[in-house]
Amino acid sequence: MKKFEEMSKEELKELRSSLAAKYDEYKAMGLTLDMTRGKPAPEQLDLTNGIYESLSTTGYKTASGVDTRNYSAPAGIEEMRKTFGDILGTDKDNIFLGNSSSLNMMFDCLMRAMVFGEIESDCPWYEKKGRKWICPAPGYDRHFRVTETLGFELITVPMTDEGPDVDAIEELVKDPDVLGMWCVPVYSNPDGIVCSEETCRRLANMKTAAPDFRIYWDNAYVVHHLYRDSIGKIPDMLALCAEAGNPNRVYEFASTSKITFAGAGISCIACNKDNMDKLKKICGVQTICSNKVNQLAHANLLPDMEAVDKQMRRQAELIRPKFDAALSVLDEDLAESGIAHWTNPLGGYFISLFVMPGTAAATVKLCKDCGVALTNAGATYPYGKDPEDSNIRLAPTFPSAEDIGKATRILAICAKITAIDKLLEE
Amino acid sequence: MKKFEEMSKEELKELRSSLAAKYDEYKAMGLTLDMTRGKPAPEQLDLTNGIYESLSTTGYKTASGVDTRNYSAPAGIEEMRKTFGDILGTDKDNIFLGNSSSLNMMFDCLMRAMVFGEIESDCPWYEKKGRKWICPAPGYDRHFRVTETLGFELITVPMTDEGPDVDAIEELVKDPDVLGMWCVPVYSNPDGIVCSEETCRRLANMKTAAPDFRIYWDNAYVVHHLYRDSIGKIPDMLALCAEAGNPNRVYEFASTSKITFAGAGISCIACNKDNMDKLKKICGVQTICSNKVNQLAHANLLPDMEAVDKQMRRQAELIRPKFDAALSVLDEDLAESGIAHWTNPLGGYFISLFVMPGTAAATVKLCKDCGVALTNAGATYPYGKDPEDSNIRLAPTFPSAEDIGKATRILAICAKITAIDKLLEE
Repeated sequence: MKKFEEMSKEELKELRSSLAAKYDEYKAMGLTLDMTRGKPAPEQLDLTNGIYESLSTTGYKTASGVDTRNYSAPAGIEEMRKTFGDILGTDKDNIFLGNSSSLNMMFDCLMRAMVFGEIESDCPWYEKKGRKWICPAPGYDRHFRVTETLGFELITVPMTDEGPDVDAIEELVKDPDVLGMWCVPVYSNPDGIVCSEETCRRLANMKTAAPDFRIYWDNAYVVHHLYRDSIGKIPDMLALCAEAGNPNRVYEFASTSKITFAGAGISCIACNKDNMDKLKKICGVQTICSNKVNQLAHANLLPDMEAVDKQMRRQAELIRPKFDAALSVLDEDLAESGIAHWTNPLGGYFISLFVMPGTAAATVKLCKDCGVALTNAGATYPYGKDPEDSNIRLAPTFPSAEDIGKATRILAICAKITAIDKLLEE
Repeated sequence: MKKFEEMSKEELKELRSSLAAKYDEYKAMGLTLDMTRGKPAPEQLDLTNGIYESLSTTGYKTASGVDTRNYSAPAGIEEMRKTFGDILGTDKDNIFLGNSSSLNMMFDCLMRAMVFGEIESDCPWYEKKGRKWICPAPGYDRHFRVTETLGFELITVPMTDEGPDVDAIEELVKDPDVLGMWCVPVYSNPDGIVCSEETCRRLANMKTAAPDFRIYWDNAYVVHHLYRDSIGKIPDMLALCAEAGNPNRVYEFASTSKITFAGAGISCIACNKDNMDKLKKICGVQTICSNKVNQLAHANLLPDMEAVDKQMRRQAELIRPKFDAALSVLDEDLAESGIAHWTNPLGGYFISLFVMPGTAAATVKLCKDCGVALTNAGATYPYGKDPEDSNIRLAPTFPSAEDIGKATRILAICAKITAIDKLLEE
């Protein structure tokens, strides 16, 4: 098969009608396939089903005798703080545990900055009327929505193979209204990109006009490797920022949402002592403690990195075939056409597909009409607007491998039909 | 024995030396007794130990098939919303579930008002520089600390036998800077007072200068009866506010902290549809969902009011003897002296003791030196300052009945010693 750009209009029209016939066949099947969100499949959740059985045998108590059922320990139990410290490569004293949602911890962290300011702030962020936030894109729509809702102007920065474009960021942070940035440093959502050490170092070292600039380092996929021969790894960002003389610069986040239960895991924020002291003062007013019973159940399941690693290998065994199913169909059905490219992630939860510019929204729409639900085109960009109308986030974890394959075949047909329509228009 | 005020200086001095001797005896025992916080005792927590056993048998799924382990259902599962609706006497659609801490839900609710304002607000509350908050006192120190931290001036209002002094409140709300009030309507912390229907009606109906005035109705002890012959009951405040033409006035809160696990229960906020719509919009940005696995475990344990009632009777059986131990010692050791009075609560978690004005802080200090830890004197008032220096909150649930008795005896000795010192000064 030729590349589309080498085809004559006649050839394109002919191909279109055969694609349309295939599309109609699929449509007649009345499918309902969903690749919208990064949700674990039931089999993945089953891996954690026994988690609460350990509680009665230990009388709900930690090794040091903390009764997890009662009030106490606002920062969470030591055992689970240690596990997160190991996961993130930092000390347990830098870890503050929350309930299940790390997004909730990010939102709350920004709300604190809004109402109380950061250590170096001359006023709470609420008063900074021109506040701006750097959003590497493609990125996570829920991140963008948080800062949009809190009144930040969202500044898009492109992704490179080594993480967010640091050249662009170094320029942007000369503006004192730029107060922070999002970053998913390992297996980024949706591209699966791992920040290079150089990227991390430059982000830690760059001179920012805002003295209270903060990096929201969402290490959501830090142990979420798909393969074992090549593993994404980054340096400890807290240590890098301290070395760089910017010790308060970074808030790091993680959770077990995709290690244990998506809706009932444990989340954490990691930061240096000064940020932690400030955080603890306000969080101590907000609540007495988080759910420590769930923390204990998690600490029993994941006492150390060996246990985390074992759990993540099992997770990978379940989702790798699904990634493979999607990727092999993309290879078979789209590679030769030359109209699209996509990522081959080594971990994380997504495949990032770039269809012919100007056709992403139409492709998603066409898929929907055929029973295949995809994340809205544009969702991976600030304000939901992809300037190229090209990126589509594929979330291949929830459906079966067979359904993933089928959905991706339909997606390939739709991407080709809309590309041909676009080419014929020109 | 005579009342202290009827005693001569000589008699008082003599009594003081015999009290001092008893005090020294107790001090020599090297006791450590703690009545500081309203914490359930381990035996109370044991009542709920089996709660997670139901999860594996139901495959972590609700009756309607929601997989509680995964993302979904931001407002919480229907079953537990129904239970809270029944507890609070309102519809489940008015209920939004959180994680374990209702204090957290109150804090977040105020943070939303600070940053986004309420429905009727002309600006977010952050911008209302003279903002004030009504604090019925004696009251809950953590409530007061939330509004103090958020920059409200705290306005103290006295408690009456029918709840907060509504005459005073009706005057205060003529000030447009007064944006809201705290209230624990059933078995108030620490007095154990139940709001009369008249009080509730007047709070629902009163004309407030601030159009966005809010009542934070913390129904923490709604089903926490100590006795069954006399039960505290209030009307549905949401309905009262709606009838009064002030449908958005009230946010109601509750939790299972003192029904199941203090640090690992389920909390909720209840409000009318307009408040709920606004809340859901912002909470939908804050997080994907709360911990539904714990919600399901709770719904299985507490499917209806019969189950809630059964659980609360068991709780009452465990704590009633402790209240009785404290109250009988107060009767025996303090009644005749005429220097103190205290509440005889029908439910809740506290006994409110009023020692001779000007002696509460000294009494607490003397107790501490004898190994008896009490809530700081003044804690039950805004800014931690009891203008009368008289109120001491007793929390008799955590220690054993025997320890409660012992601690109360020491407390009575200390209260009498400091009262005598005060009288001799004059």
